[in-house]
Amino acid sequence: MAEIAREAGVSAPTVSKVLNGRADVAPATRERVEDLLRTHGYRRRRGATQSAALLELVFHELESAWAMEVIRGVENVAREEGLSVVLSESSGRLSLGQSWVDGVLARRPIGVVLVLSSLDRAQQTQLTSRDIPFVVMDPAGDPGTDVPAVGATNWQGGLAATRHLLELGHRRIGVVAGPRRMMCSRARIDGYRAALEEAGLGFDPGLVRDGDFHHETGYTEGLDLLRVPDRPTAVFTGNDLQALGLYEAARELGLRIPEDLSVVGFDDLPLARWVGPPLTTVRQPLTEMAEVAARLVIDLARGNKPATPRVDLATSLVVRSSTAPPRTAGSGGAARGGGGLSRSGGGNPA
Amino acid sequence: MAEIAREAGVSAPTVSKVLNGRADVAPATRERVEDLLRTHGYRRRRGATQSAALLELVFHELESAWAMEVIRGVENVAREEGLSVVLSESSGRLSLGQSWVDGVLARRPIGVVLVLSSLDRAQQTQLTSRDIPFVVMDPAGDPGTDVPAVGATNWQGGLAATRHLLELGHRRIGVVAGPRRMMCSRARIDGYRAALEEAGLGFDPGLVRDGDFHHETGYTEGLDLLRVPDRPTAVFTGNDLQALGLYEAARELGLRIPEDLSVVGFDDLPLARWVGPPLTTVRQPLTEMAEVAARLVIDLARGNKPATPRVDLATSLVVRSSTAPPRTAGSGGAARGGGGLSRSGGGNPA
Repeated sequence: MAEIAREAGVSAPTVSKVLNGRADVAPATRERVEDLLRTHGYRRRRGATQSAALLELVFHELESAWAMEVIRGVENVAREEGLSVVLSESSGRLSLGQSWVDGVLARRPIGVVLVLSSLDRAQQTQLTSRDIPFVVMDPAGDPGTDVPAVGATNWQGGLAATRHLLELGHRRIGVVAGPRRMMCSRARIDGYRAALEEAGLGFDPGLVRDGDFHHETGYTEGLDLLRVPDRPTAVFTGNDLQALGLYEAARELGLRIPEDLSVVGFDDLPLARWVGPPLTTVRQPLTEMAEVAARLVIDLARGNKPATPRVDLATSLVVRSSTAPPRTAGSGGAARGGGGLSRSGGGNPA
Repeated sequence: MAEIAREAGVSAPTVSKVLNGRADVAPATRERVEDLLRTHGYRRRRGATQSAALLELVFHELESAWAMEVIRGVENVAREEGLSVVLSESSGRLSLGQSWVDGVLARRPIGVVLVLSSLDRAQQTQLTSRDIPFVVMDPAGDPGTDVPAVGATNWQGGLAATRHLLELGHRRIGVVAGPRRMMCSRARIDGYRAALEEAGLGFDPGLVRDGDFHHETGYTEGLDLLRVPDRPTAVFTGNDLQALGLYEAARELGLRIPEDLSVVGFDDLPLARWVGPPLTTVRQPLTEMAEVAARLVIDLARGNKPATPRVDLATSLVVRSSTAPPRTAGSGGAARGGGGLSRSGGGNPA
C-alpha cells in the first residue's frame, strides 16, 4: 500500500480512503490510485479490516413477483447467519453504475449477490481488490468462467415443457419467448427446438415471438400469434407473467384454456397455482437458487473456494390444468391421458 | 453522558458502546446503562455522530406480492436520496426481537420504516435516544398517537366495495375478512357494516368469516361460506390473495364469476388485473404509502417535525369484471348498469 501511495504521489491515508469508497478524494486521484491497485494486482489482506454484517443483494429490476422469491431466499440465509440484507436496484440497466460500487466499498459487506446484473471488469477488480466476493444469480449474459454463478437448467425446462405438449398430441406449438439477449431465455427456446426435432418436427420461426418477461408482451405477442391462419393449439411462454398475458389474449379471442389452447409457463411463481385455470409450468427453484447464491458468497468470504464456479439447479415440469390434448377435426377433443407421440394426429407439422 | 457513566459506575467509552449497539458489553452493564439513558431522557445530539446512508425497512413478513409493492416505494425514495435499503423480516412475530434493535444501533441508519410491525416502549426509547427516527406503515395495532404512521382509508374502502355491490342489486353479501386482530382489517369490516346499515340491511354475522390475508384461507373460508343454505350472491374479501382463493372455491363448486357470484378484493396488486376474470378491487396505494413513509422518516432525520403524526392515503374502487348484478329468480341476471339501491329485489335481507 505504501508503494502504491508513493507511485501515485499521495499519502497512505488517501489510498486507504480510495479502498474504502470514501467520497472525500478528488476523482483524478481516485482514478490514479484505482489504476495502480489494478496493475499491482493489489488484494486487501483477509481480515485486515472488519466487514459489516451485511449481505448486498442487487437486482436488475425489482418489478415482479419473481424478485420476491429471490429476496426470500437471501433473507432466509441472512437471518440464519445473523446478517442484514442491503437491497439495491440497478434501475433496469444491465450493468451497474459506478456510484453503486463506491457505496459497496464504503459499506464493506460480507459479499454481494447480483441478480441478472453484471459487473464490468473494472468493477470486478474493485470488489476483488477489497476482498469483497460476489456471485451472479441467473446471469443475463455469460459472466465469464471465473465468476461464480448460480442458475437453473433452462434448456431442460424448455425441453420438458415442449415434450409434455407433444405427448398430449400437439403439433403446432407456438412460443412467446423472453428477451432474446438473455441467455436463460435463449436456452429455453433451444430446449423447445430440441424437443421438436426429437419428435421429427421442424422449427417454424413464424410460431415464435419475443417478449420481455412482462405480462403486457404476453398479451400483445400472444394476440398476434393466435391470429395467424392455422394458429397454434399450444403455446410455451417465456415465464408465468407472459402466460397470464396470453390467458388474457385467449379470453379476448374467445378461446378456452385448455379446450382450445394449451399454455405452459416458466418459473412457477405462487400465482401460477392461483389463476384460472391453474397454470402448467416449468418450476424454477428461485428461492433455493437465491439460498445457494447467498451461501456461496458467505463461503467465499470465509476463504473457501467453491467446488465449481457455476451451479445450475434442476427445473421440473408441474402439470396443472392449462394443458390438454388438442381438439382436432374428428377427435372432438378430450382424448386425454397417455398420449403417445405418434397417436392423435391433428394440426399440420409446420 | 459523563453523568450516566458515573451513575452506572462504568467508563464513558462503555456508555458509548451501548449507544452504538456494540456486542462487547456485558448484558447486565448494558441493561443498567439503558435504564439510566431512559430515566435521564438522554438524546444524542443531532449530528454528534455520522449516520450511514442507510434506510431500514422491516417487514412483519416478506411472503407476498404485497411486500414487493412496498419495497419498490421505499427503493424509489432511497435511490433519489442516495441511500441504500436494509431489509429485514421480523419473522412473523408482530414485535421485533432485541437483536434486531442492536443491529440497527450498530448500523446507525438515517431512519427506520416498520411495516405492520411494532416496537415496544423500550425499543422506541432505544431508537429515540440514538436519534434514529422511525415511521410505522399500516400499523397492525394502534401504535400510539406520538408515533408517526402512514396508512390508508380502510374503512372507506370497505364502504365503497359494499356500496358497489348494493348498487348492483346484491342483498346477501358475505365477507371473507382479514385477521381480526389487525386494525386495517377491522376497519374494512366496519365499512362493510356501515354500507349495509345505510342501505337498511342488517349485519348478519353468519355471512362473515375470518381469514389471514393468504390465498389458502380465501379458499377454505370461501368454500365454507358458499356452502351455507341461501348462499351470498357476492363476497367482499380481506385482500386480493383471499379473493383468488375464493375464485378457486367458486370454480370447485361450479359457480361462475360474475354470473353466479360477484367478488371484490382489496389492495389492487398487479395480479388483480391479470386473473380471469380481472378482479374488481379496492385500490390501496401501497407504493405511494411506502414513498410517503420513507420521505417522512428522512424528514424526521433532518430535524423537521411532521405536520401531523398520522397520514392516511385514499383508497379507491377499481371496477373490473368480477362483479355484476345478481341472477335472481325471475330476472335471469344481466340487468346490468345503473342499479339503484331499491330496485332489483332478490335474496332475503338478513
